[in-house]
Amino acid sequence: MTDGEQTTDTTRQERASTWFSRLRDDICAAFEAIEDELVGPNPTSAHPAGRFERKAWTRDADGGADGGADGGGGVMSIMRGRVFEKVGVNVSTVQGEFSEDFRAQIPGADQDPRFWASGISLVAHPCSPLVPAVHMNTRMIVTTKGWFGGGADLTPVFPDDDDTDLFHAALKGACDVHDEAYYPKFKDWCDRYFFLPHRNEPRGVGGIFYDNLDTGDWEKDFAFTQDVGRAFLAIYPKLVRRHMDQSWSVDQRRKQLVKRGRYVEFNLIHDRGTLFGLKTGGNVEAILMSLPPMTAWP
Amino acid sequence: MTDGEQTTDTTRQERASTWFSRLRDDICAAFEAIEDELVGPNPTSAHPAGRFERKAWTRDADGGADGGADGGGGVMSIMRGRVFEKVGVNVSTVQGEFSEDFRAQIPGADQDPRFWASGISLVAHPCSPLVPAVHMNTRMIVTTKGWFGGGADLTPVFPDDDDTDLFHAALKGACDVHDEAYYPKFKDWCDRYFFLPHRNEPRGVGGIFYDNLDTGDWEKDFAFTQDVGRAFLAIYPKLVRRHMDQSWSVDQRRKQLVKRGRYVEFNLIHDRGTLFGLKTGGNVEAILMSLPPMTAWP
Repeated sequence: MTDGEQTTDTTRQERASTWFSRLRDDICAAFEAIEDELVGPNPTSAHPAGRFERKAWTRDADGGADGGADGGGGVMSIMRGRVFEKVGVNVSTVQGEFSEDFRAQIPGADQDPRFWASGISLVAHPCSPLVPAVHMNTRMIVTTKGWFGGGADLTPVFPDDDDTDLFHAALKGACDVHDEAYYPKFKDWCDRYFFLPHRNEPRGVGGIFYDNLDTGDWEKDFAFTQDVGRAFLAIYPKLVRRHMDQSWSVDQRRKQLVKRGRYVEFNLIHDRGTLFGLKTGGNVEAILMSLPPMTAWP
Repeated sequence: MTDGEQTTDTTRQERASTWFSRLRDDICAAFEAIEDELVGPNPTSAHPAGRFERKAWTRDADGGADGGADGGGGVMSIMRGRVFEKVGVNVSTVQGEFSEDFRAQIPGADQDPRFWASGISLVAHPCSPLVPAVHMNTRMIVTTKGWFGGGADLTPVFPDDDDTDLFHAALKGACDVHDEAYYPKFKDWCDRYFFLPHRNEPRGVGGIFYDNLDTGDWEKDFAFTQDVGRAFLAIYPKLVRRHMDQSWSVDQRRKQLVKRGRYVEFNLIHDRGTLFGLKTGGNVEAILMSLPPMTAWP
């Protein structure tokens, strides 16, 4: 890599990590506005509107299981509110070296184990069983190669065809601007990825999932990744507002806690990101922020 | 294997599986008696005493991920009571063939993949945060080799030194009758096994864990495995009775739900038996019966 390319890479890395933080700010503001608006007949309406709390963390320079020259860190934003029972939004920018175990699995890491990674990751578990849970994550990774990855998927307790259509249409819109082949490919990838084989059931109603995206045009790939974030921000608050003031029953709540158990099973048994993070000495609190606040296996 | 040995094996298998079912009956009766005795000041005392419900299942002859000539089945016994919020006791006796993936990991299965296995597995999640959760499992496995495995371990929310001492003393007593080397060895094995590396914390206060036990004297090994079951039945109900009528607070209950989250993390990320069962097409309902009825990741 020449000095010229190094400079370009540094600028790109700054632009990407700045974008992830800005997206986080916009999402947090949108979710806090939703907290203010709740008026429905459910018990949580009597609670105060939630606000995000932020907590910064730094990557341990030597303590990680991957050893090597680690650095960087992140900020966890977590809100325990009256619409969002628990929502976590993590941004992080870290660098280090992959351990030998992982080098073979990571593009471009077999020659040189050093990596840089920045991203945003969000999981929302609403109070109401009628408001779908959601996950969104986008990231930029640099080894001797560089790529983007991410996606968003919806996990309702009681799937609503209109919600599903609106959510998919928003993501398809973000995809189609960049490449009409993206949506069908990334939708299928999502369906395959967010599936519980031991239950023989999907985690939710899908969305999109992509990884190793490197068309050779960084600007184009970055623009697409930004548009995935914007599409999420445009559509998910609408889905929340469609349902948050609807009355829900104790039985619906019970079903929500069981559905959340499936979410836990997926994340702890199958999710590559979760297991990868836990096994490479990642920030446990940030990684497991995705787990639901209350869950039942009755 | 000669016909004479075959007959002996069949008799041994029948004796072992009969023992596991009889132990199940004795444990269920002891736990139902505890349900009847509850008088304490906690809200669950107003609930009716729980009773076990049994549900038989048969191993799918062709559907398992391991293919081959599968058969057998088991009985799940589950009680949702006022002392035991959820307690599951499974007995099963199954035979089949290990898939190629697993043959290398299982003693004696590399030459001939056929196996026979019988066992009892119990997990209790009490209502009261002052009553420790517990796990007990013993099993007999036959491939071209044959062995016993099992153990018991205690998971209190608020460790009580007397409970811990009584529990370990009971298991040590069962061990020492057979071999004074057993308890220190099996205690250490338990401490190593029931540990959450990502949290850097033990699951509970330990107990014993053993596997691949084949001293060459089947009668001796079977007698030891029976004594582990008897020791569990002698001590755990005592620990329940020590605490079940003590008053507990909402804050203690909250801490219990968080501690249960660690239990879920261990079982889904690390527990070999759980992951092995899920990946070999085992009975999902029976395998995941160990998961707590209510759990929090606040």
